[in-house]
Amino acid sequence: MARARAAAGLCARDPQPSEESCTQEDLLLAAAYVSDAEHNRNVRFETSPQTIRLYYFYNHWAMRAATNFFIFLDLSLALFEEPALFPLPFLATSIAEVLCLTAFFGRLVHFAKVTPQMVFWKDTKNICIMVTIVLTLIDLIIYGSLEAVSIHTVRWSRALRPVFLINFPQSRQIRRTFRSIRNTLPDILYVFLLFLFSMLIFSLMALKLFGDRGLRTAGGSPYFTDILEIAFELYVLVTTANSPDVMMPAYDFNWWYSLYFITYIIINTYIFMSVFLAVIYNNYRKHLKNEIRKLAYLKRHKMIQAFDILKVKVGSEFVVKEAEWKRLAKIVAPNISSSHLELLLKISDEGQKGHVDKTNFIRLADLLNIQVVTMDVKRHPLEAWMPQVYTSSLSLFIQKMVQHRIFVWIYDVIILINAVFIALDEKNALISYAEWLFLSLYITEILLKLYTYEPRAYFGRKQFWNWFDTLIIIAALVATVANATIQSASRRSSQQILDIVLVLRVLRLLRVIVSIERFRVIVTTLINIGPTMLTFGGLVLVVYYTFAIIGMEMFHGKVQFFDSNFTTPGALVCGNPALKDTAFARDRYCKNNFNDLASSFIVLMELTVVNQWHIIAGGFALVTHQAAKLYFIAFHVVVVILIVNIFIAFILEAFFVAYSLEKSEVETAIEKKIQELGVGVKEEEVQDGALINHVDTKDSGFSGGDGHSKRKGSKGLYFRIASKRYRTVDTLLQRMFESEIAPEDEGPSLDEILNFSPSDIYPRNPNFENST
Amino acid sequence: MARARAAAGLCARDPQPSEESCTQEDLLLAAAYVSDAEHNRNVRFETSPQTIRLYYFYNHWAMRAATNFFIFLDLSLALFEEPALFPLPFLATSIAEVLCLTAFFGRLVHFAKVTPQMVFWKDTKNICIMVTIVLTLIDLIIYGSLEAVSIHTVRWSRALRPVFLINFPQSRQIRRTFRSIRNTLPDILYVFLLFLFSMLIFSLMALKLFGDRGLRTAGGSPYFTDILEIAFELYVLVTTANSPDVMMPAYDFNWWYSLYFITYIIINTYIFMSVFLAVIYNNYRKHLKNEIRKLAYLKRHKMIQAFDILKVKVGSEFVVKEAEWKRLAKIVAPNISSSHLELLLKISDEGQKGHVDKTNFIRLADLLNIQVVTMDVKRHPLEAWMPQVYTSSLSLFIQKMVQHRIFVWIYDVIILINAVFIALDEKNALISYAEWLFLSLYITEILLKLYTYEPRAYFGRKQFWNWFDTLIIIAALVATVANATIQSASRRSSQQILDIVLVLRVLRLLRVIVSIERFRVIVTTLINIGPTMLTFGGLVLVVYYTFAIIGMEMFHGKVQFFDSNFTTPGALVCGNPALKDTAFARDRYCKNNFNDLASSFIVLMELTVVNQWHIIAGGFALVTHQAAKLYFIAFHVVVVILIVNIFIAFILEAFFVAYSLEKSEVETAIEKKIQELGVGVKEEEVQDGALINHVDTKDSGFSGGDGHSKRKGSKGLYFRIASKRYRTVDTLLQRMFESEIAPEDEGPSLDEILNFSPSDIYPRNPNFENST
Repeated sequence: MARARAAAGLCARDPQPSEESCTQEDLLLAAAYVSDAEHNRNVRFETSPQTIRLYYFYNHWAMRAATNFFIFLDLSLALFEEPALFPLPFLATSIAEVLCLTAFFGRLVHFAKVTPQMVFWKDTKNICIMVTIVLTLIDLIIYGSLEAVSIHTVRWSRALRPVFLINFPQSRQIRRTFRSIRNTLPDILYVFLLFLFSMLIFSLMALKLFGDRGLRTAGGSPYFTDILEIAFELYVLVTTANSPDVMMPAYDFNWWYSLYFITYIIINTYIFMSVFLAVIYNNYRKHLKNEIRKLAYLKRHKMIQAFDILKVKVGSEFVVKEAEWKRLAKIVAPNISSSHLELLLKISDEGQKGHVDKTNFIRLADLLNIQVVTMDVKRHPLEAWMPQVYTSSLSLFIQKMVQHRIFVWIYDVIILINAVFIALDEKNALISYAEWLFLSLYITEILLKLYTYEPRAYFGRKQFWNWFDTLIIIAALVATVANATIQSASRRSSQQILDIVLVLRVLRLLRVIVSIERFRVIVTTLINIGPTMLTFGGLVLVVYYTFAIIGMEMFHGKVQFFDSNFTTPGALVCGNPALKDTAFARDRYCKNNFNDLASSFIVLMELTVVNQWHIIAGGFALVTHQAAKLYFIAFHVVVVILIVNIFIAFILEAFFVAYSLEKSEVETAIEKKIQELGVGVKEEEVQDGALINHVDTKDSGFSGGDGHSKRKGSKGLYFRIASKRYRTVDTLLQRMFESEIAPEDEGPSLDEILNFSPSDIYPRNPNFENST
Repeated sequence: MARARAAAGLCARDPQPSEESCTQEDLLLAAAYVSDAEHNRNVRFETSPQTIRLYYFYNHWAMRAATNFFIFLDLSLALFEEPALFPLPFLATSIAEVLCLTAFFGRLVHFAKVTPQMVFWKDTKNICIMVTIVLTLIDLIIYGSLEAVSIHTVRWSRALRPVFLINFPQSRQIRRTFRSIRNTLPDILYVFLLFLFSMLIFSLMALKLFGDRGLRTAGGSPYFTDILEIAFELYVLVTTANSPDVMMPAYDFNWWYSLYFITYIIINTYIFMSVFLAVIYNNYRKHLKNEIRKLAYLKRHKMIQAFDILKVKVGSEFVVKEAEWKRLAKIVAPNISSSHLELLLKISDEGQKGHVDKTNFIRLADLLNIQVVTMDVKRHPLEAWMPQVYTSSLSLFIQKMVQHRIFVWIYDVIILINAVFIALDEKNALISYAEWLFLSLYITEILLKLYTYEPRAYFGRKQFWNWFDTLIIIAALVATVANATIQSASRRSSQQILDIVLVLRVLRLLRVIVSIERFRVIVTTLINIGPTMLTFGGLVLVVYYTFAIIGMEMFHGKVQFFDSNFTTPGALVCGNPALKDTAFARDRYCKNNFNDLASSFIVLMELTVVNQWHIIAGGFALVTHQAAKLYFIAFHVVVVILIVNIFIAFILEAFFVAYSLEKSEVETAIEKKIQELGVGVKEEEVQDGALINHVDTKDSGFSGGDGHSKRKGSKGLYFRIASKRYRTVDTLLQRMFESEIAPEDEGPSLDEILNFSPSDIYPRNPNFENST
């Protein structure tokens, strides 16, 4: 009903449009669309007034935070359940789990109320959550009742817990990566089959060539006599973990046999593994582009929906009246200041006609995302307080000195000398005094800088590197004081605190990064891709959690770790006689076990790094069954072949986008307009990135008076136009795409957008530019 | 002088152009340009008649083959010099070396005669060769005279031998990869420095955290007490080779310490190593594009030079007369058949006007590169010989059967059963009879296929998979017969022959690939990038050779391998007491030594695979000096961080080009024209790639009569238009680029072309399409 009205221009039903032509409900609906566009949310919701209020409540930060809290509570239960790091009775954990499930169910019901029924039931996410809730309850009941009669079974539903993490709407990024993996599977399948076939051929060849030779490995066991064992060894060789050991017996026998292994490594390790990376990278790019195109069109679609609700006809075109526009902006961003709102209006209402046209209205979501800063050159407080002293020639000399390059270099040298002192033995009294000397030098540096630069500017909100520098020095100060206190007070201090002190002392060397421009650029790039890397953290968490739960059910208690004071007879074989004389026991891998969640995660991390994974796999196969190796092979395929390659693809992509942007200026229509109107200020100007420019401007400000003019003229409220360096790959790509669709383009219909396929993206005629 | 005339149109000096207006010299010069364009050669040569003849001689295949022969002779001398695999007296090897040097010098003098003096002396390649020749001679003399008085010194100049391989003009690809590495270095330097800095910070932290704990490794040695050792261990951890062993003592002590190692691995192993790959890949793409643009413009430039020599004015435009054009083509391609020449002319002389215009003339180099095939449907010889029998219903049924999918599937199953039999013990008599059964089944298959398909078509020049299939079966036949003969004749047969027989028996399983379409496509792609992969082979050879020579000088004789019959007391410590109780001796790595060229190459291969490289490095450091580890670290940086990443970049690129072409048709102007004129035939039609289509056409040919018409109509000589699948990355990219430059575009001047910089290529405004 509401939708039908919206199509006709909801606020236009009154022939004489008055100031109050739109109801509060219409505004709320439009604001919901704008807000979704601003945050790239893609939930289809009913448009009746009470549903919209429910939808606002659904998107409220407290509700989202509560959901996240319950998800992590649910996941962390594994720490307290048998095999537990911190054991709790089954009753406590099961009550907590039921609580979580109730919360999830409540959230789902809330969602069902908001979204149209058809959409709700068609969405596999919701089905997944419901099925998982039911399965978990069934498992809880069965396990609980069997436990009551003292029969121990498997809590299998625990492996399903990551389903909640993936399927709630806020985990869009993780879902996207999962989709990317799923879409890659068909492409990779035949390559994988061919790879397995090649392994089979080589296994048979190895059996024929080496099986009857009676060779022995370095450990004394028979070499390459069993086809299954050969296949496993060759799979391990693909991961390079048993090179060159697996070759040595054959190579010792006759050096021609090394050719067999070299051929195998070239074909399977180098070529096939690179092809896997290529297939995965290619798919990643394809799907990334498709998703971004989808997001950009959906955003525009929502803005048009919002416009259609609020539009009234003025002259020959539909527009949104200024008053409506302001009310809308206030609903979307309740904390917006009135001067900020005026600035937004100045951009949107080009001719100051008292209304906003469609093209400008569509930009509102982007406008709200642009930060606004107050530009204001402040005088140094000391200058205001005692101008004679501060502008005296000595003071000016000090300021010049601090701003000079040599000042930075001197401190770099000091830091390096400090590094040498840290490496030396601290028992020496001289060195422990030197500690204090270095610290006082660093503090002097900070004070000198604060003397020279305006303190509020120096500690500006985005002055990342200044904050970084100062925090390191404060940490170093705290560490040194704490160290001295501990050493003088008691000999027996807490190990953890001492370790932290030690780490902090070393971390102060990071200050070198601040003073070398190129290092700062690299680190900034890495920090910028940090948020997206957290997506991989989430993905890895999901996979690790599932494998850890399965691993704990299969292997817990099979391998024990005993402290180094060896009182137990089985300490050297990890408490399991099956491990006698194995590489697992010889390498002292007893602590690599699945006896609690933390240990499991560390074992899985070691398996991700790959090296020696076959020894860990072999150890657990010996204490259970040879088939246990399949668990480790599955982990390798999922994590190393799929996820690590997607991670590499992501880094490659982030790097290329950053590179191609470095070569050029990508400005969206809004950014251009802001520049034209002269109400924008480039990120670089307020950023620390150009500390020296900043210094120079300051400097001229002090030395003369007219040099100030540039800054003086720029007082007031301005848009901060984000530097291209400070954006993530996703936003960068989305901006690039948006800058290419014309402002009038309304995009395809909603259904078309939702059914975009990656193969539509590629141009029919690839050209030289985009092919490589 | 000749050049000045060329600019004015060399053959146009006669006002009444006659048939013989161009001298033989002019034609030779023009033909030299065309030939260079055809083969992408970029040598600047003098244009005087005798120089051109010298230049022809310089490019003669025999001269090039001789140069290659001497290069490989020179390189292989290392096999015969101390420490030698096959020792020869110093006199013999030094005479051979002098011979090689003379040959190189001769080749260089020849080149100097051909190319202008200025160009010759400006080219670093030539300087490199001359310096290396002189240095080698000096080294030979010093070493020889010291040897005469029995003083053994180092033959250091041997490490320079790969200079000859790199610097002769035919190794363009290897040089390009080297250039690519050199260009990457500045970009990678700061990342590498930051990486080292991060290692330093972590080393200091490790020293402070673990140095005073008194921990011990699994081997019992002190853990993390010396800063240099810590730095080495942490570098090894980046390569993952000592994970998780390096973590275990700290982790056993307190599990919180695992966080230190996890942080280290995430930052240094995952992030930094991915950034290295990204930087290298990015540079590789940039330079690849630049080189290809250069090649394309140089080619055009040379064709225009050739045209300018031969052009005469007809009407308002310059053209080349048909007679001149034919004489030119005959000089460039002496073995061209006259019908082939007519076909080329038909394409080039569009309006049959008796002359070729500039646009068409420029295409000559490409035209000569297109293969010409004779399309001709042959009847099966049996059909011609005894048509009644061959077209009888039984015979047609057999033919239908062989062409059916099920026939293929049945044979796939047979091959799999064969695989199982191979895996089983062949001592069993039943199984050894089964061998013969399988073999006869395979031979029957081939005979049936030859009965069904026309034999000359089946074994066509490009029917790769049919050849592959047949050769495997013949090999299997030979192997089985040889095996039977050996087993019946004598118990003590040659090991090598037996091994080859065994391998051949297994290789027959490769036939499965032939029958699965998707496998065939993947393998074809891999085979297509094979030639370029050989470039990497050359690059690896160069680096391996240099490192092997250095390694042999440093480490030869330090580690000895003794046969397994352990009579020598030092056998278990590789003949060196310093290795007692080390991982090197425990893992039986004695044969991993630098005692001859072959062994050195295998050690270097193991170092390339990375795993356990620290044990090998540690072993050689113990028998010489700890500084020897630097040799191994340098090898890791050069080969694993640079070359392997370039290899991966190459595979990624090859894959993407193949992918973006699969989505579309890229045809050059010539291909379009050939299609228009109806004198082309698509590669696919004569290729095995579409065996089934082929079969279908055949089939209809046999069953009816009119179905034949398509083929019948296509009798005669045709251009084979290469399928996009069957090209290398380079040619594909070059074609793509050439299809984008307009036929009239003469390109920039020669100097501009030679000074193209990669940064010119990137578009000022990257768009969404080409950014990802």
